[in-house]
Amino acid sequence: MFYLIGLGLGDHKDITVKGLEIVKRCSRVYLEMYTSILGCHKEEVEAFYGRPLLLADRELVEEKTDEILAGANEEDVAFLVVGDPFGATTHTDLALRAREKKIPYKVIHNASILNAVGCCGLQLYKFGETVSIPYWDETWKPESFYEKIKFNRLHNMHTLCLLDIKVREPTVESLMRGRRQYMLPRFMTVAEAAQQLLNIVDKKDALEHNTVLNDLSMCVGLARVGSETQRIVVKTLHDMASTDLGGPLHSLVIPAKELHPLEIEYLQHYATFRLDSYNY
Amino acid sequence: MFYLIGLGLGDHKDITVKGLEIVKRCSRVYLEMYTSILGCHKEEVEAFYGRPLLLADRELVEEKTDEILAGANEEDVAFLVVGDPFGATTHTDLALRAREKKIPYKVIHNASILNAVGCCGLQLYKFGETVSIPYWDETWKPESFYEKIKFNRLHNMHTLCLLDIKVREPTVESLMRGRRQYMLPRFMTVAEAAQQLLNIVDKKDALEHNTVLNDLSMCVGLARVGSETQRIVVKTLHDMASTDLGGPLHSLVIPAKELHPLEIEYLQHYATFRLDSYNY
Repeated sequence: MFYLIGLGLGDHKDITVKGLEIVKRCSRVYLEMYTSILGCHKEEVEAFYGRPLLLADRELVEEKTDEILAGANEEDVAFLVVGDPFGATTHTDLALRAREKKIPYKVIHNASILNAVGCCGLQLYKFGETVSIPYWDETWKPESFYEKIKFNRLHNMHTLCLLDIKVREPTVESLMRGRRQYMLPRFMTVAEAAQQLLNIVDKKDALEHNTVLNDLSMCVGLARVGSETQRIVVKTLHDMASTDLGGPLHSLVIPAKELHPLEIEYLQHYATFRLDSYNY
Repeated sequence: MFYLIGLGLGDHKDITVKGLEIVKRCSRVYLEMYTSILGCHKEEVEAFYGRPLLLADRELVEEKTDEILAGANEEDVAFLVVGDPFGATTHTDLALRAREKKIPYKVIHNASILNAVGCCGLQLYKFGETVSIPYWDETWKPESFYEKIKFNRLHNMHTLCLLDIKVREPTVESLMRGRRQYMLPRFMTVAEAAQQLLNIVDKKDALEHNTVLNDLSMCVGLARVGSETQRIVVKTLHDMASTDLGGPLHSLVIPAKELHPLEIEYLQHYATFRLDSYNY
């Protein structure tokens, strides 16, 4: 059997009892390590699970699926994913490839940032489409995520922004030379995400006097959700751009313009200014 | 400490290792039993957790919060929720009441139908606002959920429909008599939900020739997600209205009109007709 097992968001003890029982009896255990990261050390996890972990980077998962699935017809193989297995498209793809090869598979769900984000007090059912904010570089500065945030805001829905992660990304030069070399890992912070949004908003502002989102709009920064060091802050977009929430992973939420009184009461706890009289 | 602990979706072994460690050391353990239900027997859970469970119905949670929080300053009290603690507004409210009383609290996240619904193959980030479909009665037939489904469809987003649950609901007559008597538990099936949607669609159809959603639109029925007996079916809305997926809980998804090829490939597995040439 091939098992796709969610690890949840905090540390090695956020795996479910069912998930842990399965991991302990698997002959091979992969840990996916490029769409998210664990909040603790690999060695700690290996000791607790009692199994060595095979690290699976993008190259392995997207180009060598056969290697991962090999033998899963006769023995148990686990593929561990931080959060829930269906949080990223590549894992859906792994399940599809298993099905193609007539390998039975099972999914063990767990918390994902998509539902755990409720910890800030915003109601989950009021979230619209989720967006991803990618790192900009010199030549590539996509703004499509802004249009989705704007759409959600105009229709009174919250937006969860997933922030870019670069782990084991080959450098462009090394790809051209045909021999992969990897960049240092990078995890976008809420400050970086807020700054990229401000850059877009400032540009729009000159054109259309931006009332949908501007530097005084309230936003929610979340870091290491589900871990002992979790942090949540509520600030203006302007102030968020200079806020340091510490180590990864970070997420940013742009709330709807109209909030429920319970949402305001909950968010107030994390805010540096009074929210009830605030014009978002 | 007051702990809000998610149990996930399947059975007693879907609690996280961290959650289980906490439950075992708590002096009182409540199980919330009116916004969702466990996929196994209470006795099984009690035996596995090694703690007796105090069942918490709506009356207790909404009217007797003090009783639940009593003593949580000095001892550990756990409040268990099927799925994730932030799936329902009442649990956010419990956390707020704890904060008011200066009782420290902690949340242990777990899978919720809001992220586990990804198991059908539809991409999670493409879901719009979640809707709840309530049971209709003789005099009360709300249709607001249809407007939200329509909105999501028009903007190319999937809609997760959470289906009504009635557990320990006092009868209207008994409330008038001042002495509560309770209705038998009811859990809306995908067939009932599809039928209510069809009733709305049929009415609209006569008025506006419905192209947003009609009886031939594709929908996804899910039952007991995360359990051993999980079922997923892809059918037209018309056929879903006569589909029996067995015991609770059920959920219904109305997909976006445009699907990604990977989504189609995944859904195909659960469908009774070819999806790639289908006009949704």
